[in-house]
Amino acid sequence: MKILVIGAAGMVGRKLVAALLKTGQVGGREIAGLTLADVVEPSPVTASIPITRVATDLSAQGAAAALIADRPDIIFHLAAIVSGEAEADFDKGYRINLDGTRYLLEAIRQAGLQHSYKPRLVFTSSIAVFGEPLPEVIGDTQQHTPLTSYGTQKAIGELLLADYSRRGFLDGVGIRLPTIVVRPGKPNKAASGFFSGILREPLAGMEAILPVAEDVRHWFASPRAAVGFLLHAAEMDTDALGARRNLTMPGLAATVGEEIAALERVAGPKATALIRREPDETIIRIVAGWPKAFDARRASALGFAGDADFDEIIRIHIEDELGGKIG
Amino acid sequence: MKILVIGAAGMVGRKLVAALLKTGQVGGREIAGLTLADVVEPSPVTASIPITRVATDLSAQGAAAALIADRPDIIFHLAAIVSGEAEADFDKGYRINLDGTRYLLEAIRQAGLQHSYKPRLVFTSSIAVFGEPLPEVIGDTQQHTPLTSYGTQKAIGELLLADYSRRGFLDGVGIRLPTIVVRPGKPNKAASGFFSGILREPLAGMEAILPVAEDVRHWFASPRAAVGFLLHAAEMDTDALGARRNLTMPGLAATVGEEIAALERVAGPKATALIRREPDETIIRIVAGWPKAFDARRASALGFAGDADFDEIIRIHIEDELGGKIG
Repeated sequence: MKILVIGAAGMVGRKLVAALLKTGQVGGREIAGLTLADVVEPSPVTASIPITRVATDLSAQGAAAALIADRPDIIFHLAAIVSGEAEADFDKGYRINLDGTRYLLEAIRQAGLQHSYKPRLVFTSSIAVFGEPLPEVIGDTQQHTPLTSYGTQKAIGELLLADYSRRGFLDGVGIRLPTIVVRPGKPNKAASGFFSGILREPLAGMEAILPVAEDVRHWFASPRAAVGFLLHAAEMDTDALGARRNLTMPGLAATVGEEIAALERVAGPKATALIRREPDETIIRIVAGWPKAFDARRASALGFAGDADFDEIIRIHIEDELGGKIG
Repeated sequence: MKILVIGAAGMVGRKLVAALLKTGQVGGREIAGLTLADVVEPSPVTASIPITRVATDLSAQGAAAALIADRPDIIFHLAAIVSGEAEADFDKGYRINLDGTRYLLEAIRQAGLQHSYKPRLVFTSSIAVFGEPLPEVIGDTQQHTPLTSYGTQKAIGELLLADYSRRGFLDGVGIRLPTIVVRPGKPNKAASGFFSGILREPLAGMEAILPVAEDVRHWFASPRAAVGFLLHAAEMDTDALGARRNLTMPGLAATVGEEIAALERVAGPKATALIRREPDETIIRIVAGWPKAFDARRASALGFAGDADFDEIIRIHIEDELGGKIG
């Protein structure tokens, strides 16, 4: 079985590739070859199976057709211009997130019109398809009312995925990922950065800034849970989905205060003492409009499983990123 | 003030143009010129203001830019490949309903980047954005789960309209029209055709076939109400909409039995005697998945007004199409 990962150089993409190479199979079928694509050439990986690494622009003429030329059985489409950039550069966001996705779907359809071809396509959507006003707990039939161009593009991607699946051109599963914590690496300027920062920096013995109040509630998953969602989406029986191909993943609803309490349980008061409260009105305003919690019962019933609690999310970071040690 | 009507040759388009010419104004502002565009050249109309009639393919290079070259203040975008054809011809449906709409939005944005330009854009969406399983009464926050490519394309149009409005490129209002009854003209092969046929044919002294049971419930508006929705969308204060630019119009929920009872009240038993019951399993199955009723309180609160009852819908047909006489 051949697998294509588009967006393989990103954080989730790299962890997905590592997980695929570790088990060597998806749904009991052996992986015979893996193509890693991204806008920059993905880093080399050590593997016993053939690995192809491709730098490509999904919005360029013929790029999608070239990517699927060897007819991968499973395609993970994780590539996207992120929220802030899609908002700052309207054309680029629509070109990559809408046109790029559509070119991929259309290349698959065209290949299927010529020969029998109907791959599983796993598409990462986002809770950014939801925008305020929202209920405290968002159910599985909440309408999509994005308040960013990124969220709009993801919502359109979901609609296209469902229609192409309904028409039988491909076998799509769209998963709305929660906010990923603990995101490894350096602090960044994303408005959501502090959700990871207040855990990651103290766990590394460094100070972190908390710009919002402790009662701010949001929806989370660890990188390991996110990879688990992707793998389950690749393996699951899609007959159970019917025509509704897109699912809110079962994240974990938690307040910032609950994050900090978990940090104290796992790493002690010397870690939480490194969190400095510095309210930022801009971030407070942005975050106020974000989803607080979901009732993701549909995905849970379909076998998707998230993190048990925030202690587990922190322990996953310590195991996967810090070699088991707190700095 | 200049107005552009795209889709001016269709049934609703022609009635909209007649209404615009009759009052000569929208929102108290005098109409100085009217451009009528469609894929076929719209028929001549008698008017005291300049009328431009254009045959154009909205999906062709430069077509949208040409249509807005004189910077219309209000644009009605009614053009679409209808449901059955968009399902039969996948490429054509996406080309006109998705690409055509996007080209129009993008032409407006490009014009605005060069000079100050931000027209009101009224977009006709459809209750086809909703697909089963659905609640008995569909609320204003029900998610979009289209089960046709047409419904998918309309749902994408709504998302684009909202994002382009949010970004300030245009001032959009999307309206989800109910099923229009009584649709004038000849019987057609649309699965929904009987909803009009069982009124229109008997009112003209002809037999009509009813392929479903009398307890089938659906969501309706007269052509006159539809034109009223369009005009109100062109005139309304869009500040009240916030970021949610798309609205389910206040139709009338009625069963086939209620339609027939209204026909009997208005036209007597000699009319209803012309309805022949001839169950059609295909149509029964298709119609079973359609929306039954909506709670359109948001549109009602914003001043949109539908038909009072089915008797009124029938009287409107008699007045507007039959010269006040029952055949």
